[in-house]
Amino acid sequence: MDVSVVVLAAGQGSRMKSKQPKVLHRLAGIPLAAHVINTARQFTSDISMVIGHGAEEVRQYFDDQQIKFCVQSEQLGTGHAVAQALPELPKAGAVLILYGDVPLTKPETLTVLVSKVGQHSMGLLTVNVADPTGYGRIIRDHGGNVQKIVEHKDADTEQLKVKEINSGIIAVPAWMLHEWLPRLSNNNAQGEYYLTDLIAMAVADGVAVQTVHPCDEEETLGVNNRIQLAELERWYQLQVADQLMTNGVTLQDPNRIDVRGTLTTGEDCWIDVNCVFEGDVTLGDNVVIRSNCLIRNATIASGSVIEANSVIEDARIGDNATVGPYARLRPGTELEAGAKVGNFVETKKAYIGAGSKVNHLSYIGDTTVGNGANIGAGTITCNYDGVNKHQTQIGHGAFVGSNSTLVAPVTVEDGAFIGAGSVLTKTAPADQLTVGRARQVSLANWKKPVKK
Amino acid sequence: MDVSVVVLAAGQGSRMKSKQPKVLHRLAGIPLAAHVINTARQFTSDISMVIGHGAEEVRQYFDDQQIKFCVQSEQLGTGHAVAQALPELPKAGAVLILYGDVPLTKPETLTVLVSKVGQHSMGLLTVNVADPTGYGRIIRDHGGNVQKIVEHKDADTEQLKVKEINSGIIAVPAWMLHEWLPRLSNNNAQGEYYLTDLIAMAVADGVAVQTVHPCDEEETLGVNNRIQLAELERWYQLQVADQLMTNGVTLQDPNRIDVRGTLTTGEDCWIDVNCVFEGDVTLGDNVVIRSNCLIRNATIASGSVIEANSVIEDARIGDNATVGPYARLRPGTELEAGAKVGNFVETKKAYIGAGSKVNHLSYIGDTTVGNGANIGAGTITCNYDGVNKHQTQIGHGAFVGSNSTLVAPVTVEDGAFIGAGSVLTKTAPADQLTVGRARQVSLANWKKPVKK
Amino acid sequence: MDVSVVVLAAGQGSRMKSKQPKVLHRLAGIPLAAHVINTARQFTSDISMVIGHGAEEVRQYFDDQQIKFCVQSEQLGTGHAVAQALPELPKAGAVLILYGDVPLTKPETLTVLVSKVGQHSMGLLTVNVADPTGYGRIIRDHGGNVQKIVEHKDADTEQLKVKEINSGIIAVPAWMLHEWLPRLSNNNAQGEYYLTDLIAMAVADGVAVQTVHPCDEEETLGVNNRIQLAELERWYQLQVADQLMTNGVTLQDPNRIDVRGTLTTGEDCWIDVNCVFEGDVTLGDNVVIRSNCLIRNATIASGSVIEANSVIEDARIGDNATVGPYARLRPGTELEAGAKVGNFVETKKAYIGAGSKVNHLSYIGDTTVGNGANIGAGTITCNYDGVNKHQTQIGHGAFVGSNSTLVAPVTVEDGAFIGAGSVLTKTAPADQLTVGRARQVSLANWKKPVKK
Repeated sequence: MDVSVVVLAAGQGSRMKSKQPKVLHRLAGIPLAAHVINTARQFTSDISMVIGHGAEEVRQYFDDQQIKFCVQSEQLGTGHAVAQALPELPKAGAVLILYGDVPLTKPETLTVLVSKVGQHSMGLLTVNVADPTGYGRIIRDHGGNVQKIVEHKDADTEQLKVKEINSGIIAVPAWMLHEWLPRLSNNNAQGEYYLTDLIAMAVADGVAVQTVHPCDEEETLGVNNRIQLAELERWYQLQVADQLMTNGVTLQDPNRIDVRGTLTTGEDCWIDVNCVFEGDVTLGDNVVIRSNCLIRNATIASGSVIEANSVIEDARIGDNATVGPYARLRPGTELEAGAKVGNFVETKKAYIGAGSKVNHLSYIGDTTVGNGANIGAGTITCNYDGVNKHQTQIGHGAFVGSNSTLVAPVTVEDGAFIGAGSVLTKTAPADQLTVGRARQVSLANWKKPVKK
Repeated sequence: MDVSVVVLAAGQGSRMKSKQPKVLHRLAGIPLAAHVINTARQFTSDISMVIGHGAEEVRQYFDDQQIKFCVQSEQLGTGHAVAQALPELPKAGAVLILYGDVPLTKPETLTVLVSKVGQHSMGLLTVNVADPTGYGRIIRDHGGNVQKIVEHKDADTEQLKVKEINSGIIAVPAWMLHEWLPRLSNNNAQGEYYLTDLIAMAVADGVAVQTVHPCDEEETLGVNNRIQLAELERWYQLQVADQLMTNGVTLQDPNRIDVRGTLTTGEDCWIDVNCVFEGDVTLGDNVVIRSNCLIRNATIASGSVIEANSVIEDARIGDNATVGPYARLRPGTELEAGAKVGNFVETKKAYIGAGSKVNHLSYIGDTTVGNGANIGAGTITCNYDGVNKHQTQIGHGAFVGSNSTLVAPVTVEDGAFIGAGSVLTKTAPADQLTVGRARQVSLANWKKPVKK
Repeated sequence: MDVSVVVLAAGQGSRMKSKQPKVLHRLAGIPLAAHVINTARQFTSDISMVIGHGAEEVRQYFDDQQIKFCVQSEQLGTGHAVAQALPELPKAGAVLILYGDVPLTKPETLTVLVSKVGQHSMGLLTVNVADPTGYGRIIRDHGGNVQKIVEHKDADTEQLKVKEINSGIIAVPAWMLHEWLPRLSNNNAQGEYYLTDLIAMAVADGVAVQTVHPCDEEETLGVNNRIQLAELERWYQLQVADQLMTNGVTLQDPNRIDVRGTLTTGEDCWIDVNCVFEGDVTLGDNVVIRSNCLIRNATIASGSVIEANSVIEDARIGDNATVGPYARLRPGTELEAGAKVGNFVETKKAYIGAGSKVNHLSYIGDTTVGNGANIGAGTITCNYDGVNKHQTQIGHGAFVGSNSTLVAPVTVEDGAFIGAGSVLTKTAPADQLTVGRARQVSLANWKKPVKK
């Protein structure tokens, strides 16, 4: 059966205390609603999103993602919200209703839910909780069939004892929405049109209401304030950590890793405490990431070691390289096999050849370094003249002495040796010693500074 | 009714295994007793503190805070301790008894407790705990009125089952202390004068003993060893985290933030994992603080981003500034709007004008930088001659080339351009290129170093 | 009674998803099996280890530790595994059977277990767990004596309710192994020789089976996957944290400290969040370690402060020194009393005399600095010429101006003053000013760079 998805994302979220629409608040680096859309895409490309508060910002975020936006100008209840999407929905097939602020429902769970949809059957996602206070209770008849959903405030003493609650997530045949949503009434205390009322209509009409449970209660939790946001963030991160460990990564502390994106790992990787991964990060085999690293959009090949406190962004690191501690690889950095970038070194648009070393206190930007070169401590490539950026070329086997200043555009040829403390403004020829240094003089009758 | 507070702070705390008096051990950056004093000040300025072990250090810490110190030279029990404060206490009004090692009782709780004090009534703070082992039990009569407090070791089988325990915190009419404390007896196993005995005296005398419960058991917990200190520290930090989130701050992990002082936040701030805030820190709207930052006494205006691993102390940061990663702003740093301080940069007594950039590997101290200036990588202001500190002035729109050495006192005028690798010892005139560089020479028949 | 230990370490650990043998996976910095060997050594030097999967790597790790290796080429059950060690075992005395993947059994627990061994008695380590699913149940008779062990899959309804489970750890008289192991049968579902069957044989033979419980269930937990590895790592670290606090160290967060080795502490040390200690680290009294430090094999004397984000390895730090933030002390660093190493400074094979300062952005390698010297910001010792390493000597009270380049081998004599930005290639004489600097020139009719 074809599936369409409606994502309700119009709510204000005033308890977030935010100028930002609630569904754009981020969990694991992407908006809550983006998690829901990513899940929806596993079922269909026919996705409608009902927007309201902050409609323009939400629309803009998902602009190029082929989503049908339906504006709900007044928030008159969930039934009313779904009704806004009716013109976009096909007459046949299944419709899955999701919520932009319930980010972590698993596709596996929804697959089962959707499988319950038939011409005269629907799926209802319910969950048994320890404390059902505030939630709609699932009331079943003696045969165990769902009879109705009773809201907490309408429940009697017996009903209040029910621990099975309504998640709000349903999958229904499309005809139900087209026929019944227009017939919903707002004749209730809140004056709202409840999607929940569909259940009673289904029962009355002999449509089978089949319930499905998620593996974890967290799959059905919504975000209404930042405490709940943090709770789901932590649950998500623990799930990621468990998956990484199951895949064969050693995590020094599963409570202290944050993955905001995709972390792909080879065999026998080891990740120390307090690391953050953002975007797409791929690790080869036997990669070691030490404590407090921040790594964003990077490929780190087998056998490489990233020492503590390193920050890496948009970089490619070859086999058996060593980075850090305190290395900052900025976008466009490429390290070939066996290269070393050490402490207090910043690289940007820098290609570092195989086995080359930039071990200390350097800035290497807009630069190509050949293989087997050694860049001394305190070396600065002066790539910027205040207006334009210029290139530095450093050849194979070159040795750049410490505290050198390479004023780009400039070339250090293969095997060139630059004397420490030199300022280079023109080509340093291959295999020659090049220096630019003042004469050292000592003044015997100099007087020490005195305290003013 | 006027309130006086007596804080008992004479205990030794031998299980702390410390040379320091227990009440000076710090929680969230300030001594345990300072938390109690801060709470007490919300009720009165009439505060007496009973000191004993480490009396001089305690007195010294609170020296200028208008507290009446009463020395208890021998520790003969809580009743004896309060008795030391009698000469300082008024004859009328209410007296609230607090403990220097019970740091986290909330003012709201104590407000209710104090409200129970009348001419013939008193307040007793009790708490229901899962495991009451070791604590004094609250014994009530059939009408539910407090009858007495029975110490654990004196309790019979029925009494041991009681889960309501005595916190020791009481609020009483002052006359009770003046009349009854001198009548306390030390005729008990420990040979001590127990403040607890006041309860039995009150009951016998027809004084109503009204109990009050705190919201959280932690409000009544004392610190006897460093494990308990750590537990209360974590509870305190979680409370702070919850409050921040409720106020509209996104915390990436509420278990990994430490606030030791006051963190004031604008709208929609975002704080990544493992940050530490000390002293008074104020964030504007939309401020982003990335992982592992340490920020002490700083104001960071709206839209600014503090990248990972930055350390900031006694600094003011304007709107939309960017700091870090690995920036260290030391005391006296001021960044105007849109300024950038990048990686491996240290500033101290440095004013950085609007839009100016110090992006890499620099030390900027005792320096004023105008607007729109660019300070190249590796620039060092030499502010110290071993004896005196000197000033560096850098004008608007100046460009200081990389690896420059600015020997203070020295001025780089507006629009001046300093060639990379220069050592500056005198004024660089406005809009001119100034360089101080040796000639570059290459030696064709130079021999490479050989392995010794 | 003499004790021998057999450590079973032949298992594959396929759920680790690793190329490495399971028992070599590390917990707190050393292999699982090394924890077991360390514990075993507290009882005896007669240790046999049964190896199989990854036998060569395991043997190699423990190569010089005087362990008798017994290869179990096929994994035919625990009984078969112990049987491989029979030729190495004495005929008399006690034998304690441990497991290479059960790393955290405490010596105190095993001492009690071993004490149960007599000529006709043995010790069996059992534990009561909340969820015994999957474990062998301890079945006792009405007198409370152990009758047998029933595997989970063989247990009847009543037996399944038993919460006391078999840890597998036993201590037995040696004769039992020599007599009974050869008589074990593999006539069971798995076709394996179970060590557990010894219990039934003991009961049948009138040998008293005396059970011992560990203090904590974790003492008996094995590691079968990386989730379990992380759980035991965290439990271990919390135990270490508790011990440190009990000894009088303040930990800002016991959940955020990692000790992989031995951390010895003096009085009143204070350790902030997220620090990692590796190898042997010794702290004196009143040492402060701020957040995010990584410290490996170091001695830090009393009163010293290690500021945030510092990385220290194989270093000795004297009294009242200050290090960091962002200091990296590499192997061979020695700081004398009152020395300061500041931000973005790397030291290696560096001796820094009493009261000397290297405060900013420097690399000091293969260098001796006298007392009371001041090394300016951006100073680089050029210790490497691409082939050989050379020494730098800096005398007492010397002042090295900022951004200086010291080309080793070179000497700065006592009291010498080096002008900022100098390149030093020969001795700077005592008490003289030495400079090596180009003349500063300004070009009035210079044209600013224009945008290309």
